[in-house]
Amino acid sequence: MIPIQQHYARRTDDTLRRAIARFDRLAPELREAMEYGLMQGGKRVRPMLVYASADLLGAGQSPVADAAAAAVECIHAYSLIHDDLPAMDDDDLRRGQPTVHKAFDEATAILAGDALQTLAFELLAEQPENAADTGRRLRMVQELARASGYGGMCGGQALDIRHEGKAIDRETLERIHRHKTGALIRAAVRLGALCSPTLQEAELAALSRYAEAIGLAFQVQDDILDITADTATLGKTQGKDLVQQKSTYPALLGLDGARRLAESLYQDALAALAELPYPTHTLEAFARYIVKREY
Amino acid sequence: MIPIQQHYARRTDDTLRRAIARFDRLAPELREAMEYGLMQGGKRVRPMLVYASADLLGAGQSPVADAAAAAVECIHAYSLIHDDLPAMDDDDLRRGQPTVHKAFDEATAILAGDALQTLAFELLAEQPENAADTGRRLRMVQELARASGYGGMCGGQALDIRHEGKAIDRETLERIHRHKTGALIRAAVRLGALCSPTLQEAELAALSRYAEAIGLAFQVQDDILDITADTATLGKTQGKDLVQQKSTYPALLGLDGARRLAESLYQDALAALAELPYPTHTLEAFARYIVKREY
Repeated sequence: MIPIQQHYARRTDDTLRRAIARFDRLAPELREAMEYGLMQGGKRVRPMLVYASADLLGAGQSPVADAAAAAVECIHAYSLIHDDLPAMDDDDLRRGQPTVHKAFDEATAILAGDALQTLAFELLAEQPENAADTGRRLRMVQELARASGYGGMCGGQALDIRHEGKAIDRETLERIHRHKTGALIRAAVRLGALCSPTLQEAELAALSRYAEAIGLAFQVQDDILDITADTATLGKTQGKDLVQQKSTYPALLGLDGARRLAESLYQDALAALAELPYPTHTLEAFARYIVKREY
Repeated sequence: MIPIQQHYARRTDDTLRRAIARFDRLAPELREAMEYGLMQGGKRVRPMLVYASADLLGAGQSPVADAAAAAVECIHAYSLIHDDLPAMDDDDLRRGQPTVHKAFDEATAILAGDALQTLAFELLAEQPENAADTGRRLRMVQELARASGYGGMCGGQALDIRHEGKAIDRETLERIHRHKTGALIRAAVRLGALCSPTLQEAELAALSRYAEAIGLAFQVQDDILDITADTATLGKTQGKDLVQQKSTYPALLGLDGARRLAESLYQDALAALAELPYPTHTLEAFARYIVKREY
């Protein structure tokens, strides 16, 4: 993690806690399940990207930045709750804790995911400060919806399910990642940028290219770490993934090829940032963390 | 049904079909499941309320009315798909057709519901025509989110699950209905009203009272029809519901008491409409249909 991430995570948690605290006592289990699911999200990577992008353009202190950071995290949390369900990935544990449907029950997990998605849009829509802020918030609703729905995260998840256990080519693997995880990372950076009243389209375009590069780099590095961590800790060989035809970048490109791709995406991210006339050290540090991390 | 409903249903279907037609070929099964689920919604009662309310205030022809009608129906359709899941009501059929998780599979049904919720907000957020329209659309996002999430539909569903098979008092029964189904009916009427550029708060308040009355009347009449239809077609006696301690209005108030309640809610709805200086015949006809229908 990079140092400022803790600060951003705290602001995110504050906003989320305030939103949950406003809930009445209608359905305490549902409320608890939503809170539990939000706390399983973990490192608050996406809110950090919202804040870092907004800070870059001088808008990191605005209430809309808090709303955007919390909204993106609500979408992320809801997607994890639903992905863990028995009918999906059927996971009992997340970050060492029981998943929401294990800690509560399946019906409550479905509803908690549903209500967290709703909360994302409620947070974006509340208390606009003026006409310009209203326009920004509505655009954020549109951006977040596009990134989350059929054309983004949900579509990517459906595509992933369809190709489960099948050998796929690099183009398909990239399409899955760009939708399933990339779209929300891109939306996080773009929502941060949209907090700025003076945003230029060229700035938004450069930040989007940065986000696309790190989004994909994150997956490539994940695939690499799956192998190198396995080799170190479990003694599994790289060849095993190839034999299993697991759809990973090392399986498709070899370990060295995957490492070259991660490095090249990292350079793409830096090149995109270099187009911006601002000190981009936080976003640079995050890109570096993505490809240099070892866990 | 009331005559104009067909016309409104057609406009709703057109908007929904256009929205789905814009989807790319990313995940064809998901797209089909979403479309299938949308078509199971049935009578388009909620879009009709959006249009009737907007028409009343002279805004029924605006693009935002189409967006609002389709958005409310997306929320309704997503809730039916998720309610039918094995972990929830576990229904195999809806309107005589296989439910989405039966026609496709459970994972696809979860994702289709998720993506339909997202689509609702995407529809509301797209292509605002000017600053005033932007403000209206953002407020609609807020209203629809509040009606759908923890404080509305999802919370009501959680409350209903929690009291399943238990005897409950009238206050709890009303709380369940007001949240689980009433909130979205209220939102439909309010979103329609919000289409008007000249909406007065007093008009919105009167329409909200109308919506609250018909929303509850709809449930009361449903409970009544469950019994009277059973008596006529299956020979079941009214007493059976009382013995089973099913939480229904006839069980709590007796059949005559429930009928008096439906009539009184109908009168409340008419009284609310009488406060409006417009010809409210469509909304009156709908209220009448709610309490006089026999199926």
